[in-house]
Order: sequence, then C-alpha cells, then structure tokens
Amino acid sequence: MTVSLYIPGVSSTPKDQPGRQQGAYPLDMWYVAAHSKELADTPVGRTLLNEPVVLFRLGNGEVAAVEDRCCHRHLPLSAGTVEATGIRCGYHGLLFDENGQCTEIPGQEKIPRKAKVGAYHVRERNQLVWIWFGTERDSEPTCEPPEYKVHDDPSFVFDGDVYHYNAPYQLIHDNLLDLSHLGYVHLRTIGGNASIHMNAKLTVESDDTSVLVVRHMPNSEPPPTYKAAYPFKDRIDRWQEVRFLPSHQEIWTGAIDHGTDDITNPNRGGFHMRGFHGLTPETSTSCHYFWTMATNPTQNIEEIKKKVVDQTAMTFDEDKVVIEAQYENMKRFAGEPMIDIHVDVGPNRARRIIEQLKQENLPVT
Amino acid sequence: MTVSLYIPGVSSTPKDQPGRQQGAYPLDMWYVAAHSKELADTPVGRTLLNEPVVLFRLGNGEVAAVEDRCCHRHLPLSAGTVEATGIRCGYHGLLFDENGQCTEIPGQEKIPRKAKVGAYHVRERNQLVWIWFGTERDSEPTCEPPEYKVHDDPSFVFDGDVYHYNAPYQLIHDNLLDLSHLGYVHLRTIGGNASIHMNAKLTVESDDTSVLVVRHMPNSEPPPTYKAAYPFKDRIDRWQEVRFLPSHQEIWTGAIDHGTDDITNPNRGGFHMRGFHGLTPETSTSCHYFWTMATNPTQNIEEIKKKVVDQTAMTFDEDKVVIEAQYENMKRFAGEPMIDIHVDVGPNRARRIIEQLKQENLPVT
Amino acid sequence: MTVSLYIPGVSSTPKDQPGRQQGAYPLDMWYVAAHSKELADTPVGRTLLNEPVVLFRLGNGEVAAVEDRCCHRHLPLSAGTVEATGIRCGYHGLLFDENGQCTEIPGQEKIPRKAKVGAYHVRERNQLVWIWFGTERDSEPTCEPPEYKVHDDPSFVFDGDVYHYNAPYQLIHDNLLDLSHLGYVHLRTIGGNASIHMNAKLTVESDDTSVLVVRHMPNSEPPPTYKAAYPFKDRIDRWQEVRFLPSHQEIWTGAIDHGTDDITNPNRGGFHMRGFHGLTPETSTSCHYFWTMATNPTQNIEEIKKKVVDQTAMTFDEDKVVIEAQYENMKRFAGEPMIDIHVDVGPNRARRIIEQLKQENLPVT
Repeated sequence: MTVSLYIPGVSSTPKDQPGRQQGAYPLDMWYVAAHSKELADTPVGRTLLNEPVVLFRLGNGEVAAVEDRCCHRHLPLSAGTVEATGIRCGYHGLLFDENGQCTEIPGQEKIPRKAKVGAYHVRERNQLVWIWFGTERDSEPTCEPPEYKVHDDPSFVFDGDVYHYNAPYQLIHDNLLDLSHLGYVHLRTIGGNASIHMNAKLTVESDDTSVLVVRHMPNSEPPPTYKAAYPFKDRIDRWQEVRFLPSHQEIWTGAIDHGTDDITNPNRGGFHMRGFHGLTPETSTSCHYFWTMATNPTQNIEEIKKKVVDQTAMTFDEDKVVIEAQYENMKRFAGEPMIDIHVDVGPNRARRIIEQLKQENLPVT
Repeated sequence: MTVSLYIPGVSSTPKDQPGRQQGAYPLDMWYVAAHSKELADTPVGRTLLNEPVVLFRLGNGEVAAVEDRCCHRHLPLSAGTVEATGIRCGYHGLLFDENGQCTEIPGQEKIPRKAKVGAYHVRERNQLVWIWFGTERDSEPTCEPPEYKVHDDPSFVFDGDVYHYNAPYQLIHDNLLDLSHLGYVHLRTIGGNASIHMNAKLTVESDDTSVLVVRHMPNSEPPPTYKAAYPFKDRIDRWQEVRFLPSHQEIWTGAIDHGTDDITNPNRGGFHMRGFHGLTPETSTSCHYFWTMATNPTQNIEEIKKKVVDQTAMTFDEDKVVIEAQYENMKRFAGEPMIDIHVDVGPNRARRIIEQLKQENLPVT
Repeated sequence: MTVSLYIPGVSSTPKDQPGRQQGAYPLDMWYVAAHSKELADTPVGRTLLNEPVVLFRLGNGEVAAVEDRCCHRHLPLSAGTVEATGIRCGYHGLLFDENGQCTEIPGQEKIPRKAKVGAYHVRERNQLVWIWFGTERDSEPTCEPPEYKVHDDPSFVFDGDVYHYNAPYQLIHDNLLDLSHLGYVHLRTIGGNASIHMNAKLTVESDDTSVLVVRHMPNSEPPPTYKAAYPFKDRIDRWQEVRFLPSHQEIWTGAIDHGTDDITNPNRGGFHMRGFHGLTPETSTSCHYFWTMATNPTQNIEEIKKKVVDQTAMTFDEDKVVIEAQYENMKRFAGEPMIDIHVDVGPNRARRIIEQLKQENLPVT
C-alpha cells in the first residue's frame, strides 16, 4: 500500500549501496558522538560521518542511537520527544525503540514489519558517548571504545563543550599536534613568547595508529595561569604531551617545582591541565569537536576549574577562526603546493595514519 | 539597435520553449496569487509556478499582473511604482499597462513595437486574487476561478496571511488532509488529547479533482477555544470537514449543542471555524500558502475574530517548522522508502489527483 | 619533504594555466585596488579579477601586494600582521616581503627556495592604489597608472568609500554613464524633476578606450544642494560631464552664475562636484566600487564637504539596491531580449569598448 509519488529534490531511486561509502573516513572504529551530559530529557540530532543520527537516553539510563528519520513521512526523530522506551515522532506519534523498531502507531493496531529505521551501536564510557562505524552498516563492534580515565579520576575536575567546524577534521588534528602555533594564534591568551614555542625541542614517536609529541621546558618561568592555579615556589619544569589517535587527541600539559621530580614519571605531582579532543567528521568538509579540559586544583576548586575551562574555550575560539579561514583559502588556492616546515613532523605522521586506515577499509578488488 | 552584450551568469540564448514547462505542475487552472488586501498602493512581486510576476491594482480598481521585469534593462517592475494606468519602472520610468504594453518612455517619443512584457489573466473573487496558468503562455482561461462565499458571508468575519514555505506544496496538502497530526504537532495550541484525534472515525470520498475527508465527534467535551467563543450549554456534536481541490483546501470545523441538529445539515447552526488554504507553487521546491480563518461570533466579534485568527497563525507556525524540517530530511534520506499508515488515505488520494493532472497537461507525443 | 595528502573540496591537481583566464576581463591595464587611506597598520585582503590579494604598507611607506595565502598551510596572509619589512602569517609566523619571498620561518634556519608566493605590481598615485593585471601573471606594466589630479588639488576637498556589489561591474558603468536615471532612482536625494533629466540634450563622443557624455543645462534654477554650498546670485548655467575609461569614470558636475562664463572653459569658476568612480571586478559576477566625491567650497569647508559626501553616499546606496536587483532579475529572465532606449547610447559605447579590449587580450590562435 506504499504510495511512491515524486517529490522535487528527492530522488525516488533507492540507495544501491548496502554498506558505507568506502575510503572517505577510517571505518571499523569508535568515534565520539556526544558528551554524556548532552543526553538528558531531549534528543540530540547530529550528522556523523555523513549519516543523520538521533541520540537519546532511555528510561533505564542506557544511551541509544538510530537513524534520524521517522519511517512514515521522514520527519527527523530529533524533532520528537524522548520516552522511557524510545523516541516518539513529533508528527504522527510513531514510537521507535533503541533498535530502530517501530513499537507503536497511534490509532493503528498492526505495525508493518518494515516499520523500522537503522540503529547504531553506542557505548557510554568515562562521560563520553561513542558510536561505532563499521565498514558495513550492520558490522558488529570488534572492540570496546577508548578509555579516558581522567574524567572519572576524583583528583580532577573538568568541563567542556562541542564545537561545530566548517572544515575537515584533519585540519584540527594538524592544529592540535603542532603546539608551535600558540605564539601566533593565541597571542591574547596562552601564547606568550613566540620564540620559546618555536624553538622548544620536541620528540615525535609514532606507530600504526598513534603519534606522541612531547616537549619539555625545564627550569622555566611559570606562566600567569599556572601561578594563579597552583602554589609554585619559583621556577618550574614544564611538559607538553600530545597523543594522537584516529578518533581523538589527549593533550596533557603541566609543571612541577623545578628539580623536585622526574617529569617523565607517570605519577608526577604538580599542576596538570589535561585536554581531551574528540574529532568526528560531520561530512567530508565539516566536523564536530568534542573537547574537555580537566585540572587538579587543591583549593578554590570550582573557581579554578571555571577559569581554566573558560580560557581553554577562548583559545579554541581563536583556533576555529584560523582553521575555518585556512580551509576557505585552501579551496580558493586549490592546486597550489604547500611547503612543509619543521613543525609539521607530528601532523604529517597523523595524516599518514588516517590515509592508511582509509586504504585498509577499502574493499579488496 | 539592440546591443546584446554578454553579462556573466546571464545566458544570451533565447528560451526555446514557447510554452510552459510541462509536467511540473497541474496547468490549465487558476491558482491563488494574492489576498485582495495585499493589492493597495504598492506592487507585489511574487514568483508563481517558477515565473516572476508583479501584481498591482489599477486606478479603476481592477487587478493586473505582468512579468516582473522592465523590457529595457530588466529591473523588476515590483521595485517601481503603481499609477492609475499601470506600473512605472523605478530605473528610467517606463510605464506598462495591464496588458504588459509599454505606454510611455520618458524623453522618447516613439515606443518600439517590441517594448512589452508578458501579461497574465487575473481575477478578483471573494477577496482573493486568482491567476490563470494555461499549458501555453497565451492560453485563455476556460473557466472562472473557484468561488469561496464565506469571505462575503455577512454572518462571518475573517482574516489571514500569506506564508512562504521552503518545501513543495504537496507536503502542505498532505498535512492539511490529515487532521490526526493535531495531537502531536499542536500540543501547545489546538491539539488536545492525541488519542481522540488518532482514533476518531473518518470517511474519505474522492473524484477526479477533489477529496473530501469528514470526521464526526458526537457527544464530546467542547475544547477551551470553543467554550470561549460560543455559549455552548454542555456537551457538543463536533465535525471536521476537509475538502481538497488542486488549488486550495477548505477546512470547516464546528459544533452544535449535543443532539440539537443533524450535523450533516448544510444549514446547521452553532459555532463555526472555516479555513481557506490556497497553495501555490513558487518553485518546484517552495510555495506560497495563502490562508484565512473565518468564524461567526455572535458577541465580542472583533475580539473573538482576533483570538481565533491568532491561534490559527500559531498552529500554522508550528506546521511550518515541521513541514520544512520534513522536506530537508526527505532530501537527506532520499531513496529511503516511506511506510504508509492509516492516516494517509486522504493525502494519498490528493497526491494521485495532482499526479494525474500533471500527466494530462503533458503534450501527447 | 612535501606531503601532499587529500583534503576534501581541495583539488590536488596543480593549476595547468600559467597565465590568467583570457577573455573574462580586459587585461594589460591598471585597476584600482584600494584607497590610499585604507592601507595603514593592518593588511587588506581583497579578491581582484578572481585572484585573492593581500595589500599592505611597508615601513618605508611603499605599498605592496602579494597572493593572499601563506605558502605553508594556506592561511590568508590578510589574517596576519603587517611589519616594517613585510607581512607575517597569523598561524606559524612566516614573514613575506613585498616580492612574495618568505624571509623568515620562526624556529627554522633554512628557508626553502620554494617558500614564496606570487607578487603584484602596485603603484600609489593621487591617493589611489593601482594594481597591474597583465595577460600573463608575470607581465611587466607597460605604462603608468592613470592620473587623477583632483585628489591633490589644494582648492578641492574630498572623501569616499569602497562598496561591494553583487553584480558585474559593467552594470555600474551603465548606470554612471546614464544620468537620466536620477529622476527615478534618486527621487529622495539629488533627483528633482524627472522630465528635466530625461529631456536634457546630451552629446556623446568616444574613441577606442573612452566615452565622453556631456549635458548642459543653461539658465536653470539651482537645486537645493547647490544653493546651500555656494553663494549663487540667481539662475545658473549647469554642466554634467561623464568620462568613461575601462578602469574608472570621472563625473564632473557644477554650475556658474548664468551668463558669467563659457561653461566649456576648463578654467571655469563656480561650484564643482567631481566624482571618481573606480570599478574593479571581484569575480565575473561581483565587483568593488571605489568612489570619491570632491568639491571646492569657499566657506564652512568641512561642513560642506561632509554634506556633499554624505548625500553622495546616500545616492550610491540607492543605486546599489537598483543594480543588484537588476542583476538578480537578469538572471531570472536570462534569454529575454532587452530593448534599448535613447539613454543607452553612452553605456552601449562603453560596453563595446570593454568587449573589444577583452577580445584583444585573447591569444591569437
């Protein structure tokens, strides 16, 4: 009894590919879909890897994600309401459970077998909601999502946000892996002296799926934010550690009183700022940036947390302006070569990892 | 002496089709072009069925419509001024009459024969301005525009507006023919109990050019709007009648005191809300929605009219949000099937009528 | 060591044409790039003839222009900062001199030979900054930019602005060469009686690269602006002289007391308004309009200058609305012919000159 009548702008040709577009993004992996705090009483509609998804929290506290459309007349389910057992469409009230199955059609007893939409595997871990994108739409996860213990560490407090970028996610990965831009982009916030950032010695290590960039600044002057947040005695030994993974980066910075410990000691004390940076493509030309900043103040905890998070947001606002302008200009100057400089070692390794993962997802032909 | 010099973005190739694009819309019929009240001292520029039209009222009170361009340098005539005998271009003052003929070129005695633009057949009837779209640009009307006596019935007062939709007009026809969405979309206004709307029995009749959907709710509780507008004694017998025509819908709802009359009696008394819904494509992906709401208060007439019209506007605002979101999502999920449910009988018949009319307009090849 | 990794939306294919797009604009000529006053402490990013350019002023006062991209990661250099010896990128601090050569990469000793961007020939003359567009990217200028002595004439004061138009520059040339539109477009400002403008006798002269349109209005009533700005005794002899050149127009208007001089005398006295109108394509469908208005008040100099410039800005605002609406409508009615009228003699000659210059720039095949 389905009537398929032409609507302009809407192809009536069924999609012929059963799986996903191969080669556009690394697949068979978990991406960040949301902060846990985003999923409360209302649904969250978000396009991830080019697929419109609605995320919601069931009455039992579990998170769920299905295609963001009602199977009846294609209203986004994210325009509907969350109930204990699923999400209800805001047009004619169809109810869908966490498997995308329609479980109620108001005014109609029989529910057609085909009344369902696609569902996604989602997991909540350490205050983050992860979503699985396999090479096929129905691929089962082959691993658990990444752990990020900082969010559940009682000695840390954190907060964060999600930013939308009109730029491919690789450009943000580039930016985060290259701390040398601090001296030029973040003049007004955490930048400080440009030549210190440009000349600090750094080490870069990598394997098939990660890159680690480490920079040490021993016996240096504590910057104002550090002084305000922690009772340093005098000069400090600082570290900056950037760890790239295909789904996110962990940027851990901090300092101890000069000479009081080995700063490569995992249990080092002192003042810490630990950033989480989840990067999930929205489309091939835009992305979502899920970030948190955690710190370990010993006094004025809420005040220091707020200050650290607010300053972080300010610097990310500055990065957004730069990166979106960069991408617009890359399109204007498409075809012109890019010259590499010394700071590009880390970013280029990360790019090769992403390219390699894309290739691996390609079907062997 | 015409100089035809290339301007970027502007094709210099004359249009090769003498008539209209066949098959995109039902043709050889009248569409609503404006409310009468819109045509006062200033011109109204409006794209109808993909053709930019300027509507204006002559000094003798007649309405007129011509192509919305000056034949000289193509400024929209709707940017000009209305005079007693026509419309004057706002660039160099050329004057055009209701037939699209240029009747004055300031500073020049001779008016070239070719100085004219296309004209449209328009008729004003019952406070609505109708425009004829034939299969050919110069087709003569073969009938009079539809009558809508409610606008001239002294026992009714009405008001209305024109809404612009970024969605094809068929989606609004769907929406109006299906009153069951009231319980979900219009929760905050006229919705009331969703299950009443979903479970009310309805009858659907149709012929080659119309669909009639009728719903009766005998012996029911009057909703707040009804109580405020009319001195009902207790329980009521309600009706909802939706009449679809390719150019517009008439939605008449109302109630009488329970058991006091046959509610199928055309001269039934009681409280009435009579909606007119003119739907005219702007392009294949957008449309104009000309609506009015009439009612028959016996006291506090202006106050009740204002209340009824304001509440109607609120519900239409809610529909606009839903329908535009639906269309955007239909494009995102193009190719995915739609599942029909029980409420789709009326809308689907209307869709078949529009499709049939489009086919009939196609030239036989 | 360059890593060329795919970024969506950004072609990795090098541009194959070494020169410029031929035939789109007249080449081998100077265009206005900026007012002198625009180039102070901050860079000006501006697309000219489809090429993104950054303009800046060096420490020695010279003006410079290079491609608006850093050769490293393509951030627009216009998002950076101006220094004494060049412009510094706002991302990683690369410094570029007036020849587009990178002269500093912070944190790196060796500067790669390829670390450079394209540079432009620019000249500052009479408070205007001109840029050379040759048929090839590296063509040397074959002449000096146009002179406009009014800006350096001590008996004149002037001011101006740059407007951005979403319309091809030829439409503004058309508008300026045709003063008859004053009576319809500028009703509220300098328009006055429409029939005077439409019926005034005019002479049109032209050669291969210029058009001169002259209109005299002897023994006429001084308009209010004239009366307020100059102590006329009674009736006046007025002139309007429009001189078109491919890069700009000079529109000189003014009046003397009736019968006191020959108004074709180059040294005539009286009241003068001298407009400069630099028109530079941004793209084939948009342009920059650099205008100034100069006058020669003998008293209340600043006050009269301000009044004259403000009124000029108001009339140009009116023209912008008309011309952008005209262009949008030209696209909607592409293919429909345009009828010429008596006012089109000057504009049509200018169009032929631009077309002829485009043809001449085309490579002989």
